Amino acid sequence: MALIVQKYGGTSVGDVERIKVVAQRIKENVDAGNDVVVVVSARSGVTNQLIERAKALNSMPNEREMDMLLAVGEQETIALVAMALHSLGVKAVSRTGAQAGIITDFNHTRARIIEVTGGDIKKQLASGNVVIVAGFQGIDPDGHVSTLGRGGSDLSAMALAGALKADICQIFTDVDGIYTADPRIVKSARKIEVMDYDELLEMASSGSKVMQARSVEFARKYNVVFEVRSSFNNNSGTIVKAEVPTLEGLVVSGVAVDKNQTKVTITGIPDKPGSVAEIFEDLGASGIGVDMIVQNIGRAGMANLTFTVAKDDASKAEKILQNTCSKMGAEVSLTGDIAKVSVVGIGMRSNSGVAATFFSALAQKNINVQLITTSEIKICVAINLDKADEAACALHTAFGLDK
Amino acid sequence: MALIVQKYGGTSVGDVERIKVVAQRIKENVDAGNDVVVVVSARSGVTNQLIERAKALNSMPNEREMDMLLAVGEQETIALVAMALHSLGVKAVSRTGAQAGIITDFNHTRARIIEVTGGDIKKQLASGNVVIVAGFQGIDPDGHVSTLGRGGSDLSAMALAGALKADICQIFTDVDGIYTADPRIVKSARKIEVMDYDELLEMASSGSKVMQARSVEFARKYNVVFEVRSSFNNNSGTIVKAEVPTLEGLVVSGVAVDKNQTKVTITGIPDKPGSVAEIFEDLGASGIGVDMIVQNIGRAGMANLTFTVAKDDASKAEKILQNTCSKMGAEVSLTGDIAKVSVVGIGMRSNSGVAATFFSALAQKNINVQLITTSEIKICVAINLDKADEAACALHTAFGLDK
Repeated sequence: MALIVQKYGGTSVGDVERIKVVAQRIKENVDAGNDVVVVVSARSGVTNQLIERAKALNSMPNEREMDMLLAVGEQETIALVAMALHSLGVKAVSRTGAQAGIITDFNHTRARIIEVTGGDIKKQLASGNVVIVAGFQGIDPDGHVSTLGRGGSDLSAMALAGALKADICQIFTDVDGIYTADPRIVKSARKIEVMDYDELLEMASSGSKVMQARSVEFARKYNVVFEVRSSFNNNSGTIVKAEVPTLEGLVVSGVAVDKNQTKVTITGIPDKPGSVAEIFEDLGASGIGVDMIVQNIGRAGMANLTFTVAKDDASKAEKILQNTCSKMGAEVSLTGDIAKVSVVGIGMRSNSGVAATFFSALAQKNINVQLITTSEIKICVAINLDKADEAACALHTAFGLDK
Repeated sequence: MALIVQKYGGTSVGDVERIKVVAQRIKENVDAGNDVVVVVSARSGVTNQLIERAKALNSMPNEREMDMLLAVGEQETIALVAMALHSLGVKAVSRTGAQAGIITDFNHTRARIIEVTGGDIKKQLASGNVVIVAGFQGIDPDGHVSTLGRGGSDLSAMALAGALKADICQIFTDVDGIYTADPRIVKSARKIEVMDYDELLEMASSGSKVMQARSVEFARKYNVVFEVRSSFNNNSGTIVKAEVPTLEGLVVSGVAVDKNQTKVTITGIPDKPGSVAEIFEDLGASGIGVDMIVQNIGRAGMANLTFTVAKDDASKAEKILQNTCSKMGAEVSLTGDIAKVSVVGIGMRSNSGVAATFFSALAQKNINVQLITTSEIKICVAINLDKADEAACALHTAFGLDK
């Protein structure tokens, strides 16, 4: 017997038929003798409809009112899921984010959780109830409904699992788990059975979009063991937890490819303190994130700087940089035909030879490396976009992930 | 400058265009220097959609969960109305029933209000905000969302007006006010400018369906002056308040017709204590209300009993009565071809000759009266259904309501 927190996203509870399936799955967990807390999102589409209505009335809706509005979506789902469980003879009660004691700061529409009391959840579990909690929402210290922003329901589930000291937090989604690589790119990609928080975080920032980094960081901080699994079948998923012994002697857990990158090169920057800072400050002020920064000294005391930005930000970044650079006499050029390819693995911490394996795998395929960045558990390169898939396959094989 | 509580029903806030109209009307009241509290219902259709989803998951949904579900409808509207007001430059905040301190008992889906604290409404008004409150909903003493049942939003408005000591509670609806008779039946019917709570209550129980009796009773108890008026135009409506001097020397305020009645006659009831009680107990236990009860003694110590029931309850009533009556040897017969016609007016308290005017008006039209009941401020008769409209017109004229 365990205490399980389960999170079902919008497509999993999209209509009454899907809700029945979710209820059946919850029942199986209850029948197996577990205490179950369920976190649900709004039915898919509902949140967008609400936003549409709001925008029709006000182009810049007040954020507190937006939260009042959006919280409606999850509140509907919790009641429906509870009713579906009652139909199956399972005792269940629903709780809003506020009732579940998810206390946030005042940053409406993107609030951060500051405390989770759990409300009366423990008591309800003790009386044999499944507790269905509205994800994505909380309450600010003044008693106003708040919402947590993108990926908020995952965060609600992690936070409740942490506060209730749950044995596991199961994140039900439309994929079977985390894969060693994108199966559409690398045919031999396999589902990872167990991995470390840091590995998933590095995978996420390298283009694997299963979970928002924010939720994973929260889980790591509060040591919440979670599982990413599918709501469409009964296969076990990927367990994510604190550092695990590397399985099968593998140094690397996965290969990530990010094709949504643009490379920015700035040449002729005056090599004096503050020049580079100025460039990044202007970008940062516009909310544009940069990655893979490389600087070297060119001719005549001038510096060259290269980095990547998300493709969506490229034209905005170009405009800002041309302004900044023209003032210092530097030149900007952008190229979109690159991809980031990374290998990630906590085994890299204690293994030498990883870089050698990595670069010889690429060299054998005659793939040229434009930029390199590394962390303790990741090697990441920028290469030509049309070589990305070939590189991913080569690295997957080289690090023994094909099995 | 006054404190006004306004209530807008589901059709008045049915879509974003209607919400814009409501916001404009609220703005006019604010611009005129008033403090305004607005109570809104769910957009028309929303509540039914939610009920449909619930029924698809559970034929007998738990009532607490039903309230959690239904409260969603009004919560959406309050946020949207607040946003629409912001667009017009009007300061506004939304409050759920719980936040507005509408405390109810534990009877979910048909809760009764036990206290109204108003939450921080006074403070918000003082800061220049319009306060938009979700109608139809409250919170039980355990902190669970409750709903007030049919006509609940009117009740929310009355309760807030009472608690805040508002100068007036305006009930916006799709009719212009209360009429001296149904204008579809009596062409010369006129809008009543001002009337007493009791008159409206008697009109309501006699088939005028503008307001639920429950809300009017609440207003009377807490002496809330309210106005029934249209959200589709700017005409003043009907003001309802405690006993008012009868206008224009009129004894009668209105004529009501109820064609939704079936007459039940039971003959041959043993004339001994308890027989009639047994009949009404069996009906009452099934939730069937009776009206216009007349009993007289027939031949040989047998009693005859006649009363009316709502047409919708007729077949259910017949089944129950046949069972009860066969045991005591009595006979049941029903006829649906009757109508109730009433005149109502607090002026009747202090005027003699009302009955004479009433019955001579009917006699002149050769209309036969089957049943008669009276209260201090009402005379009500059951007549043939096909004479109902003629009777209403004759009474409207006889009591000087044609003007």
